[in-house]
Amino acid sequence: WKCYGHVLCYVVFQATMLVEILCLLIFTIRVIHYAKVILRDKFWKDPKNICIIVILTLTLVDMIIYGALKAANYYGVRWSRVLRPLLLVNVTEGRQLRRAFRSIRNALPQIFYVFLLFMFSILIFALMALKLLGKRGLTNINGTPYFTSYLEIMFDLYVLVTTANSPDVMMPAYNANFFFAVFFIVYILINTYIFMSVFLAVVYNNYKKYLKEEVRQLVRAKRHKMVRAFGVLQEQREEGGEPVVTQASWNQLVRLVQPNLSNAHRELLWSVSDDKNQGAIGKVAFVQLADLLNIEIITIKSRPHPLQSLCPSLYQSAPSKLLCQLVQHRAFVMVYDLIILVNAVFIGLDEENPMIANSEWVFLALYILEILLKLYVFEPRVFFSKHSFWNWFDTVIVISALIATIVNSVMKSSSHFSSRQILDIVFILRVLRLIRVVDSIKRFRTIINTLIRIGPAILTFGQLIIVVYYIFAMVGMELFKGKVTFYEQSSTDPAKAYCGNPLLNGTDFAKLNYCKNNFNDVVSSFILLVELTVVNQWHDILYSGFATVTHISARIFFVLFHVIVVIVILNIFVAFVLEAFFVEYSVDKSDLQTSLERKIEELELAVAQYVTLQRVVHTSSSSLADLTLNFKITSQHFLLLCVIANCYYIL
Amino acid sequence: WKCYGHVLCYVVFQATMLVEILCLLIFTIRVIHYAKVILRDKFWKDPKNICIIVILTLTLVDMIIYGALKAANYYGVRWSRVLRPLLLVNVTEGRQLRRAFRSIRNALPQIFYVFLLFMFSILIFALMALKLLGKRGLTNINGTPYFTSYLEIMFDLYVLVTTANSPDVMMPAYNANFFFAVFFIVYILINTYIFMSVFLAVVYNNYKKYLKEEVRQLVRAKRHKMVRAFGVLQEQREEGGEPVVTQASWNQLVRLVQPNLSNAHRELLWSVSDDKNQGAIGKVAFVQLADLLNIEIITIKSRPHPLQSLCPSLYQSAPSKLLCQLVQHRAFVMVYDLIILVNAVFIGLDEENPMIANSEWVFLALYILEILLKLYVFEPRVFFSKHSFWNWFDTVIVISALIATIVNSVMKSSSHFSSRQILDIVFILRVLRLIRVVDSIKRFRTIINTLIRIGPAILTFGQLIIVVYYIFAMVGMELFKGKVTFYEQSSTDPAKAYCGNPLLNGTDFAKLNYCKNNFNDVVSSFILLVELTVVNQWHDILYSGFATVTHISARIFFVLFHVIVVIVILNIFVAFVLEAFFVEYSVDKSDLQTSLERKIEELELAVAQYVTLQRVVHTSSSSLADLTLNFKITSQHFLLLCVIANCYYIL
Repeated sequence: WKCYGHVLCYVVFQATMLVEILCLLIFTIRVIHYAKVILRDKFWKDPKNICIIVILTLTLVDMIIYGALKAANYYGVRWSRVLRPLLLVNVTEGRQLRRAFRSIRNALPQIFYVFLLFMFSILIFALMALKLLGKRGLTNINGTPYFTSYLEIMFDLYVLVTTANSPDVMMPAYNANFFFAVFFIVYILINTYIFMSVFLAVVYNNYKKYLKEEVRQLVRAKRHKMVRAFGVLQEQREEGGEPVVTQASWNQLVRLVQPNLSNAHRELLWSVSDDKNQGAIGKVAFVQLADLLNIEIITIKSRPHPLQSLCPSLYQSAPSKLLCQLVQHRAFVMVYDLIILVNAVFIGLDEENPMIANSEWVFLALYILEILLKLYVFEPRVFFSKHSFWNWFDTVIVISALIATIVNSVMKSSSHFSSRQILDIVFILRVLRLIRVVDSIKRFRTIINTLIRIGPAILTFGQLIIVVYYIFAMVGMELFKGKVTFYEQSSTDPAKAYCGNPLLNGTDFAKLNYCKNNFNDVVSSFILLVELTVVNQWHDILYSGFATVTHISARIFFVLFHVIVVIVILNIFVAFVLEAFFVEYSVDKSDLQTSLERKIEELELAVAQYVTLQRVVHTSSSSLADLTLNFKITSQHFLLLCVIANCYYIL
Repeated sequence: WKCYGHVLCYVVFQATMLVEILCLLIFTIRVIHYAKVILRDKFWKDPKNICIIVILTLTLVDMIIYGALKAANYYGVRWSRVLRPLLLVNVTEGRQLRRAFRSIRNALPQIFYVFLLFMFSILIFALMALKLLGKRGLTNINGTPYFTSYLEIMFDLYVLVTTANSPDVMMPAYNANFFFAVFFIVYILINTYIFMSVFLAVVYNNYKKYLKEEVRQLVRAKRHKMVRAFGVLQEQREEGGEPVVTQASWNQLVRLVQPNLSNAHRELLWSVSDDKNQGAIGKVAFVQLADLLNIEIITIKSRPHPLQSLCPSLYQSAPSKLLCQLVQHRAFVMVYDLIILVNAVFIGLDEENPMIANSEWVFLALYILEILLKLYVFEPRVFFSKHSFWNWFDTVIVISALIATIVNSVMKSSSHFSSRQILDIVFILRVLRLIRVVDSIKRFRTIINTLIRIGPAILTFGQLIIVVYYIFAMVGMELFKGKVTFYEQSSTDPAKAYCGNPLLNGTDFAKLNYCKNNFNDVVSSFILLVELTVVNQWHDILYSGFATVTHISARIFFVLFHVIVVIVILNIFVAFVLEAFFVEYSVDKSDLQTSLERKIEELELAVAQYVTLQRVVHTSSSSLADLTLNFKITSQHFLLLCVIANCYYIL
């Protein structure tokens, strides 16, 4: 905010202030409304509400102070911006996020002890390096003395843990003597490999432990509520007998809870619960209901194809039947895989060539033909069912590509100039289409399915990381805003060579053209923080860049970011992916699932696990097979995943 | 080997050849001897022997060819050197290593599928990058066109997975347009974070699975052998009764198997086996013997201190007793921790200062005093027992430091010149002494104990990595030997500026002073391979360095190394450390241990787990407590660790 006095600037300032006041107001109304609805006692006992009120008050105070300072032309810091993401965590909708943060908080003490030991190890190695290398008169490549200041050595060794300055930090010592390489190798072995693995182990183990505890509490709460529900619905059938719930009230309940459940499905569930066919179930069987409803069963009714009802003679004719058989044949999939591969080669070729450009229309036509053929053979509602990920994927990509290609060629023929943006979209869509080929290889499919399954969890994780990023971005913007400026490629300003800051003249930061890595706005800050998460060159960005333009102590910001994001949060992410894959490998069905499956088998229905609907062959000849069941496996592990993955239970 | 014709060179060549022939001879004799000893049938069925014979033959053939080429002044490649480490794997002693390799080989198919999918992902992203960025006329900082060749893009993106060229590879696109950063962020998220975690998960899971299978086979073999042993020793006590082994023959057996076992220990084991005190045990109890012997029980006999037997009046006197109490007091440990911290500060200060230099003598005296005092109080055999790691550590470090310091000061006073090497050793020893302080903090102690426990396993792992490194070093030496030369700091040769190879003139490789990173000898190759394992800058070393001096295809070598070492082997290492820590967290005792503990408790003995002997307070007042037992926990997990960690079972 260098531009006070300027009219436009004043307007912008007023506008952002206005938006913020509006947001504050909305949140305040929300809290007041919530306080009116809920019991007063319960409202004040909930730390969430108190947290929100404190944050709102602090933000208001900050805004007033900032406004006053601004009016008096003083410099003010908007420190309350750091608190904003906490609002996101504390609203009712942020349940998953809150749970994740709570687990991290609980795991912190353990992580802290390992971190202390890790820092102790760095201190010891730094002391040894100082004693061994400090007095030898060695120099870095830029001529500065090598390893003479204890603080510098400590910092260099910390950076070496992240491997960002390897092998440069070792070279002067290694050039002087062979044996010093051993020092660095031992250091890397202990601190980079062993300690970082220990961090992963500790983070993994503790995060899992606390999350498991939370899940256990959830399960207990669910059980408790189910027992209470049983108390409400129970009837005494015979004198002195156990209280039971009759099928009628059970049916009523299930209809109320899940109105979309088909009758067949509901009856199946009842037959599992009421195993001995007594017309009523006891407490134990009733409590299972929630878990039973939680087992996902996909019912594929082999409904007649709409064309069959419209013109049965045509659809049942010999050529039509042959077509259906052809499309359902393995060769059909293989032919299209081949087409995709040929398409990949064509995409790689130069699209300026008119032959190649026109071939795109052929491929598009082939893909649309595939979808139409499949729609002819399979029932549309089955084809576009919720679980046929690849059918949806195909259709969306192909239709978008069709639209974009048409728009592009229309624009080209009308104005002889194609829009770069639309062309980019066309290219992306074309390449994305190629991904479909992985679905044809079974081994790939299982890996991809696991990845798709942990998708929602990664989104929750994304929220977590955005909260942390936002806080660091705000602090970073306060500290480094405007210190580094990016000039457009076309600019001829001499300041472009040193990112608009003479202090950067001749530094690696400017030489490597890193000017756009700055904290001038939120988006740049986020991208810079991603770069810092990737770790490489953070050393260069840090030293040559932000420390030069501000102060040497700026490195504290970067080290803190590394500790929190890379050591704690990224390890949780890795732990999460690991867990998801271990679950994939060691999945065991719950008793409930087994009994459900047994029941289905008794009823002579085909049980198929993870059947991709696209490949289901409809055996309409068997009248019994009107239900194909697709189980989603729920184990203790999966429960764990579920909690993070936003899938709630019927509590 | 450029120097043919030179006499010295000829001698060196002859010498290495001679050593190699000698080695070949030794191995051949070993194999022949083994073939004589063992049954002919069994010898030829063992793939190890066949492998060794093939390697020996190939090496001989290679040597003859090479010698002949050499004699005719032709260039020859010593390709058989790559096979050498396989000899190490195939000798009888390399059992652990063989097991590790077998597990890797079994895990490979699974890893391979994930790797294919990972490569597919890179291909798709590269294609998208080519389409999006190739036609925009962007340039790298050195002015070369940016992202125009498909192969180059693929390679750049592979390097980006290792994060070595982040964010440089992104900067031109990011500078051109904001949104391209999204492309790279998505790429990093999928390929660096998700895929690398999946690799870890797959490697971890498969390696563990196959190793578990191996352990299961071992346990089965053990059981089988124990049953056979039972068959030999069994007696029929009563008509029609079960066959049993009497205590007499059991005792004889145990004395034979473990002669060092104390009578008390043996009787304890018998009382666990013969729970009902019948004087004989059945098959089930007998088979347990191997596991029983495997449970480590540390017997601390509270023997009288040798001084007590020598001069009891002095040792039992009031001042002596007070001294014992003082040394055993918590404050004693705390005082010495304080001394260590003060020492740390002194080490950090300038040792040129005579006050500081002399203070070293004071600290040395204090440390020696500590050891002497402890030896006065504790029984020496207890103090130096096998399990008191820190006592050994302290004593060795302090005595070495004493010797080195005396040697150093004698040399200084006699020749007024101190040897740099001895001073280095003194410094290292001084700093190492400080590590002792971690033992005082309980939380640290558990972490350190886990690390010490996986120490032997890391050594087996070290063998594994050395075998792989050796193969790559040999190939690297054949490809890149002599291409890059290191000149000493003092050298004034103009070639020093470009590592003796004009092709490197002006490249980053030469500018960053990387000349010593070469493949000219085995040691340099190994250090370079460690740097490549750390991954950072491998891009620079590769591109600017070895590809420049040889050919662009040299990168295949570096990528292959990355795939094998970083993706496969390093992940096994991480999996190993993870497993060790999970075991630490989720250890549960075997039934056998529980029953052993119960028995000990019945006998009113104190059971202490993981008692560090240093801190055991000797309660000589209680006559019953002549055995303090220290259990080493063995679980299914630990079994797993054990196999890698070289701890054999009594098979």
